Amino acid sequence: MAMANKLLLLVSLVAISSCTCTAEVIHALRPQLGSDGQLMQRAGIPCDSWRLAVEAYNKRDWKTVPAECESYVGHYMLGEQYRRDSRVVVDEAIAYAESLKLAGGKGKEAWVFDIDETSLSNLPYYATHGFGSRPFNATSFNDYVLKGTAPALPETLRLYKRLVSLGIRPVFLTGRTEDQRNVTVKNLYYQGYSGWEKLLLKPLGVKVAAIAYKSGVRQKLNDAGYVIVGNIGDQWSDILGAPEGARTFKLPDPMYYIG
Amino acid sequence: MAMANKLLLLVSLVAISSCTCTAEVIHALRPQLGSDGQLMQRAGIPCDSWRLAVEAYNKRDWKTVPAECESYVGHYMLGEQYRRDSRVVVDEAIAYAESLKLAGGKGKEAWVFDIDETSLSNLPYYATHGFGSRPFNATSFNDYVLKGTAPALPETLRLYKRLVSLGIRPVFLTGRTEDQRNVTVKNLYYQGYSGWEKLLLKPLGVKVAAIAYKSGVRQKLNDAGYVIVGNIGDQWSDILGAPEGARTFKLPDPMYYIG
Repeated sequence: MAMANKLLLLVSLVAISSCTCTAEVIHALRPQLGSDGQLMQRAGIPCDSWRLAVEAYNKRDWKTVPAECESYVGHYMLGEQYRRDSRVVVDEAIAYAESLKLAGGKGKEAWVFDIDETSLSNLPYYATHGFGSRPFNATSFNDYVLKGTAPALPETLRLYKRLVSLGIRPVFLTGRTEDQRNVTVKNLYYQGYSGWEKLLLKPLGVKVAAIAYKSGVRQKLNDAGYVIVGNIGDQWSDILGAPEGARTFKLPDPMYYIG
Repeated sequence: MAMANKLLLLVSLVAISSCTCTAEVIHALRPQLGSDGQLMQRAGIPCDSWRLAVEAYNKRDWKTVPAECESYVGHYMLGEQYRRDSRVVVDEAIAYAESLKLAGGKGKEAWVFDIDETSLSNLPYYATHGFGSRPFNATSFNDYVLKGTAPALPETLRLYKRLVSLGIRPVFLTGRTEDQRNVTVKNLYYQGYSGWEKLLLKPLGVKVAAIAYKSGVRQKLNDAGYVIVGNIGDQWSDILGAPEGARTFKLPDPMYYIG
């Protein structure tokens, strides 16, 4: 509270003088905030602001994590913050699902789950490949996928299980291709996912962009009578494009962008 | 680099053992990250994750900043980070605008600007009213607006001036009402905004939600021949709803939500 009072005092001064100062004045107040101060002293793009811009869909079509942010993204992904940020998203998703009037198992209410960086984590791969700071290597990434050892994202698994208990049908919708079906099924089961309604992989040879592909599949789900009450992914291309689903949730992913 | 190597070592261990461990394992690595560690020890919702959830549109329809986050939001708004986050958004917007093939002053290319917390800052008000942690008080807020002393957001003003120099026409589209036109004009001029194409305030008595109202006005702009090349606001309701504009930008605002 002492700190809050101090802020109020500073701001009162600003408020009083705002008519005679330059437009810069309210931003000239700079409390020393520890890690923030350190970040400002780094060269290049501020990595925390870069990550926020990615999550809020201000940064688009980026190819790799800026080189100077490799360590920042690594710390983020391996530390508490990634897990904590994911938890708040999932808490919100569960609160939303619990607020719905559902037909239960008798209805065709569905929830769309992306797979990579949503249901399964490829962090063991990315952590040994620069956390997204190096150009994507399809060969080595696919080798990793084919091991079938990707761990679940614990928060997403928690959401998945809660939705199943509410009678909402999980539908996996992924950019993974049909030839990866067996290993994906095995990987999902092994990590605790079961009882899904559908596992929709991309047919080989389909070349449309992710937004168009995924929204097209969701339209087919609608046409088949499903009511998509929720949709969760780590990419904006998972959750944009009508029909998006009644409510969408964006999990954090500062490692790569899929347009 | 020593730290990066350490991370890689930790992750290698995880990768090797990921098949025999629980799904929790990759998140069990918890480097001590200073401010993160501190944040985890606070009671209630983690304020940094709450703010991210707001910015990524995962949190919706919230009424006030959680009480325990008043100080966090105050520090954010008054410190470097708000300015830095805004700068990265505006850098992206300027890079986008500069990449366009424009007709220059001869065309009807427009850029839509929201006003409050986008073009003008009400931080002097919110800083003395709990940084959004107290219920909105229309009377005292309107008293503040009528002073006409709101400072410009420096980053938005920088974008505005760059767009004007590129021949893109600024259009203000705001939830402020027509009876506030004079004070808004004065405030904008005083803070360095000039040469706008339109200042579109809400007619008195209009009761539709922000998304519907603002998208309706943008449709009228389209119908009048304008090409909305960009749209910037601090609320998702500024930038959602067709026609959104060819590219949208979300400025940070952890103080309030307008649906």
